[in-house]
Amino acid sequence: MAEFTVSFDGFGPVQVPGGTLLTEAAVRAGVQIAQPCGGQGRCGRCAVQILNGGVRRRSTLRLSVADVAAGYALACQAVVEGDAQVSVPAQETLERTLTTDRTAAEVTAPAGYDPQCDQTIRRLFLTLPPPSLDDQRDDWSRLQTAVRAQTGMENLQISLPLLRQIGSVLREGEWRVTAVIDVGEPPGGYETSGRLVTLLPGHTEIPLFGLAIDIGTTTVSVWLVDLIGGEVLAQAAEYNRQIRCGEDVISRVIYASKNNGQAELRQLVLQSINTLIERVVQKGSSRLQVAGEQVVKATIVGNSIMMHLLLGIPAESIRLSPFVTAVNHPPVFTAAEIGLDIHPAGTVICLPGVASYVGADITAGALSSGLDDALAVSLFMDIGTNGEIVLGGRDWLVTCACSAGPAFEGAGVQDGMRATRGAIEEVWIDGRTAEPTWRVIGNDKPRGLCGSGLISLLAELFLTGVIDKGGHLNQHLNTKRIRQGENGWEYVVAWANETWHGRDITITHVDIDNLIRAKAAVYAGMAVLAESVGVPLDSVEQVLIGGSFGKYINVEKGIQIGLLPDKPWENFKFLGNTAVLGAYYALLSQTAQQRISDIAARMTYIELSADNSFYEAFTSALFLPHTEMVRFPSVVQEMAVHGETSDFFGKIGCLKGESYVHHR
Amino acid sequence: MAEFTVSFDGFGPVQVPGGTLLTEAAVRAGVQIAQPCGGQGRCGRCAVQILNGGVRRRSTLRLSVADVAAGYALACQAVVEGDAQVSVPAQETLERTLTTDRTAAEVTAPAGYDPQCDQTIRRLFLTLPPPSLDDQRDDWSRLQTAVRAQTGMENLQISLPLLRQIGSVLREGEWRVTAVIDVGEPPGGYETSGRLVTLLPGHTEIPLFGLAIDIGTTTVSVWLVDLIGGEVLAQAAEYNRQIRCGEDVISRVIYASKNNGQAELRQLVLQSINTLIERVVQKGSSRLQVAGEQVVKATIVGNSIMMHLLLGIPAESIRLSPFVTAVNHPPVFTAAEIGLDIHPAGTVICLPGVASYVGADITAGALSSGLDDALAVSLFMDIGTNGEIVLGGRDWLVTCACSAGPAFEGAGVQDGMRATRGAIEEVWIDGRTAEPTWRVIGNDKPRGLCGSGLISLLAELFLTGVIDKGGHLNQHLNTKRIRQGENGWEYVVAWANETWHGRDITITHVDIDNLIRAKAAVYAGMAVLAESVGVPLDSVEQVLIGGSFGKYINVEKGIQIGLLPDKPWENFKFLGNTAVLGAYYALLSQTAQQRISDIAARMTYIELSADNSFYEAFTSALFLPHTEMVRFPSVVQEMAVHGETSDFFGKIGCLKGESYVHHR
Repeated sequence: MAEFTVSFDGFGPVQVPGGTLLTEAAVRAGVQIAQPCGGQGRCGRCAVQILNGGVRRRSTLRLSVADVAAGYALACQAVVEGDAQVSVPAQETLERTLTTDRTAAEVTAPAGYDPQCDQTIRRLFLTLPPPSLDDQRDDWSRLQTAVRAQTGMENLQISLPLLRQIGSVLREGEWRVTAVIDVGEPPGGYETSGRLVTLLPGHTEIPLFGLAIDIGTTTVSVWLVDLIGGEVLAQAAEYNRQIRCGEDVISRVIYASKNNGQAELRQLVLQSINTLIERVVQKGSSRLQVAGEQVVKATIVGNSIMMHLLLGIPAESIRLSPFVTAVNHPPVFTAAEIGLDIHPAGTVICLPGVASYVGADITAGALSSGLDDALAVSLFMDIGTNGEIVLGGRDWLVTCACSAGPAFEGAGVQDGMRATRGAIEEVWIDGRTAEPTWRVIGNDKPRGLCGSGLISLLAELFLTGVIDKGGHLNQHLNTKRIRQGENGWEYVVAWANETWHGRDITITHVDIDNLIRAKAAVYAGMAVLAESVGVPLDSVEQVLIGGSFGKYINVEKGIQIGLLPDKPWENFKFLGNTAVLGAYYALLSQTAQQRISDIAARMTYIELSADNSFYEAFTSALFLPHTEMVRFPSVVQEMAVHGETSDFFGKIGCLKGESYVHHR
Repeated sequence: MAEFTVSFDGFGPVQVPGGTLLTEAAVRAGVQIAQPCGGQGRCGRCAVQILNGGVRRRSTLRLSVADVAAGYALACQAVVEGDAQVSVPAQETLERTLTTDRTAAEVTAPAGYDPQCDQTIRRLFLTLPPPSLDDQRDDWSRLQTAVRAQTGMENLQISLPLLRQIGSVLREGEWRVTAVIDVGEPPGGYETSGRLVTLLPGHTEIPLFGLAIDIGTTTVSVWLVDLIGGEVLAQAAEYNRQIRCGEDVISRVIYASKNNGQAELRQLVLQSINTLIERVVQKGSSRLQVAGEQVVKATIVGNSIMMHLLLGIPAESIRLSPFVTAVNHPPVFTAAEIGLDIHPAGTVICLPGVASYVGADITAGALSSGLDDALAVSLFMDIGTNGEIVLGGRDWLVTCACSAGPAFEGAGVQDGMRATRGAIEEVWIDGRTAEPTWRVIGNDKPRGLCGSGLISLLAELFLTGVIDKGGHLNQHLNTKRIRQGENGWEYVVAWANETWHGRDITITHVDIDNLIRAKAAVYAGMAVLAESVGVPLDSVEQVLIGGSFGKYINVEKGIQIGLLPDKPWENFKFLGNTAVLGAYYALLSQTAQQRISDIAARMTYIELSADNSFYEAFTSALFLPHTEMVRFPSVVQEMAVHGETSDFFGKIGCLKGESYVHHR
């Protein structure tokens, strides 16, 4: 096959065969090009400028005619057919200003935590009889006998690398050693079997540490924990470095199935985790002597796709009907096998998930939120990049996943962004003038709208009659903010002269439609779950909201758009990152770990795509707040209040179907 | 530190710091220099010629004045102190003409071998229900359920690399798969737990293979075995490539403790094994379709030091009092962990040894020789590079190791050599003229004397009165064959014009002394064992001789020099390589494997260096055949016969202490 030379500005040229995608050529050249949609040509973020040469555009869906005229092409859709010179626009760099939602000081070990009984990692001080001509037992038998004498443990396992070291450690310690043993991995049952993790010379009160790790689609969080004391010593979080290969899980699975994608995604998330490990170990060192070698255990949670990508297990079957994972409950591995930069023999427990779209983040959250022990019917929601819902309590649990899409994380919305500096997080609209005011994260000039800003905006637009219950913009309002834009009708939230980038910030009718579909999917999921167990959604006594999104959401607005069930505020509990908290509990206590396994085993998963009632429930929810207004009495009341104060609210009924924009 | 340039002829120069040994510099330059004594300056085989430059000789013990004048230095004792140019004499290359002692056709599987019951490797044909929207179990649970349904196995283990593959294998096989499972590794007990070794699409009657591996200090043997049928398909053997780092185990331990020696020795023995694996797989392919991936199990035997070096475990403690190993019974590892070129998840069982100098070769031999099941008091000997002896039977077993040294393998003897082409393997001496005749392996011109030749020569020298019972040469004999050589008195076995290399082949008084010490150590070992259990050595009803050495030994001569107990021929059984045969039985049958573990557990090891009676027994045995002639009635009889026919035999008594050479 013919080879061509492609050069990217600032990087040495590479030789590639004809037919190679520009994104692949970029990888070879060492150039990073973001592909939020996973290289499907859907997001337009990988646009590059072809300065000259033979590149064929397979798709230009996301490019304007002017862009194409200026030489732009989507790198993921551009095929090399000759020598080419390519200019790569500066890539959007992610701000690394994330903090975890719960400070270390706010977390306390479970009451009565006893490392001698709850913790699977044990530290034993052993004194062995030295060998002599009358006692020539081998080092390994001698050590096993000492462990058996102190613990009754019949079956102690050892790795080959450690077996190579025990002789010198025993002699260095003059037959007094400290053994770190993991007793937590049956078979054989607790206490009858264990695995030697490390052996140290002398009797040393070495502190031992563990990590609770949450791999979110967007954010990776790591907590450093003192395994003996139970305290959280340090926390760190950063964006999942896989983001540049796809913002949502499906894009990543697609990316993984191409070329070397599987290995690349595994390396990226390992880089995220290992960077965070380095950071928490550094932070922890200021309080206590922590070395990476002393970190001997980790628990990991994440959705099923994150778990597969971490383990390097193909996840393609998750994406395609009938949507099954390769593994819901991975075996326990060592840190070296997985690639974590802690003690290589450290125990790594990937907590169990339930199904393709209900992962260990949810089972861990069901524990840490108290759902699995609740006496009253409770609803647990984790609305992040995906939306998972669990209904139930101590006696039963049903769960489903709604393909909410990443709209609430700011993706799939023209001016959407993550909840970082410059994001509009709350909006108020004047019912008389349709003029908005907003609050921006960091008190900066606005750059876009984050999830809570979008919910707030949608609720305000609805309550003030700027959109109707179908989400259609009222073109007849006397305001310049409603206008026909490049992508159809839109509402201008901020004028160019007010914004950080000097461009208008708008919400388009497509954005509104996406948001309504997302909230409808979530609400329909809840409705189907309730119906499946014959319980009215009304009977839910508490709503437990996990995920960072939950932290910022305004319940009132959430109810107004029909995302959350219409309950009094006091019935909502915002729990922040319940996933990492569950991982933390499992890290400390084998009982908690077992409880999460039990949760995974007893949760009934309802596959919405196979559920006939779901489509109906979804269709009914495609209105603000819902077709059946009786489900949202507080919103009806609020609308009445607005109706009194707004001079055009009354028109909604008569204008509907005439002047509202129908965009489907 | 100052750096110097050292160049070896034919190789590029290397930079080394001052003080570096020439052997280390050679390694860096990629030059192979044999070090049979492990770099202790004892053997003289690493002599190199310093063409010019700054090299200081730490020891010249093994070099003549003329050698030193000609620029020779021992590479293991020469320190770089300036730039130097070195010439390396052509290295003695080992002949690779070894064959195993027992042809494949001569080996039969144990009677009634039933792979479904005896073999730990099982092949299961599974048909799984395909996933659907109504059955979304994950692939791994689905597979575990199918295995459980067919076998009742509760706990199935899987490695991460295999977990990555099961999804695609299940789909490729359209949910019909063949699982290869190892059920042989408790904890959990047989049949309740197992480990998935590999998974193949479809129901395939794939043949599965295993290897029985014997790592001798001198020779490595590998058998390829059909795990289902039980047949030996191919055999191969070659010299252990570690030989160039030391001929005996002690030299290797010393070599391992220096610089990168541990890793180097591990790589060398792995090269030997993997070369042999390649060879047996090729041989086996002619009879059956064999691929390396189908080889899923191996059992390994060898002395304790070979086992430590294979596993990369430091063996220094074996060499030093109180002589303990790091591990006698290594855990089961996978082929990938150990470095064998078979299926990476293949099970590798290193069979258990008893002590530093009684390894798995002996426990396996105690099984395959039938010793552990013998009703009569039996003696099992494996005289190779080391000498191990086991006394006992079904009810009790005692064992010891005699530091026989490698004299019987031709090392430590001036004209000694291995039993290959050109080795004198048998000698007869005319009692009247002291003239020898001999038989040479391969009917070639003689190059030296192998073990059986040395024993034969020693017996003949003694019976004909050329040496006395103390091993002293009779200088008064009327023969040119007894003369004063460079290393003292010697007997010329072959004249220069008769030999392959044109040099005389002689046996010196030092050689004779070494041989007597070696045989005395073996005999004293037997005597101490018998004494330890209060059984006269006379009561031994059968002598089981293992090891390749045993195959060639002439029992009569062995008795005449006092190496073997004085028993009728029919009480001796020559069993060849009992170690590899035991490994073969353990490879096929978990009962045999367990029996070897039981043997290791119930053998009482007697440490001769801590045993007061040993020194006495050894001293008594430092005569031909023994101080107490009553122990060797047949030899007394033979001497009487010779006394009648020999004209000088009668002088022995009167000459002793006068004209015999006293060399100690």
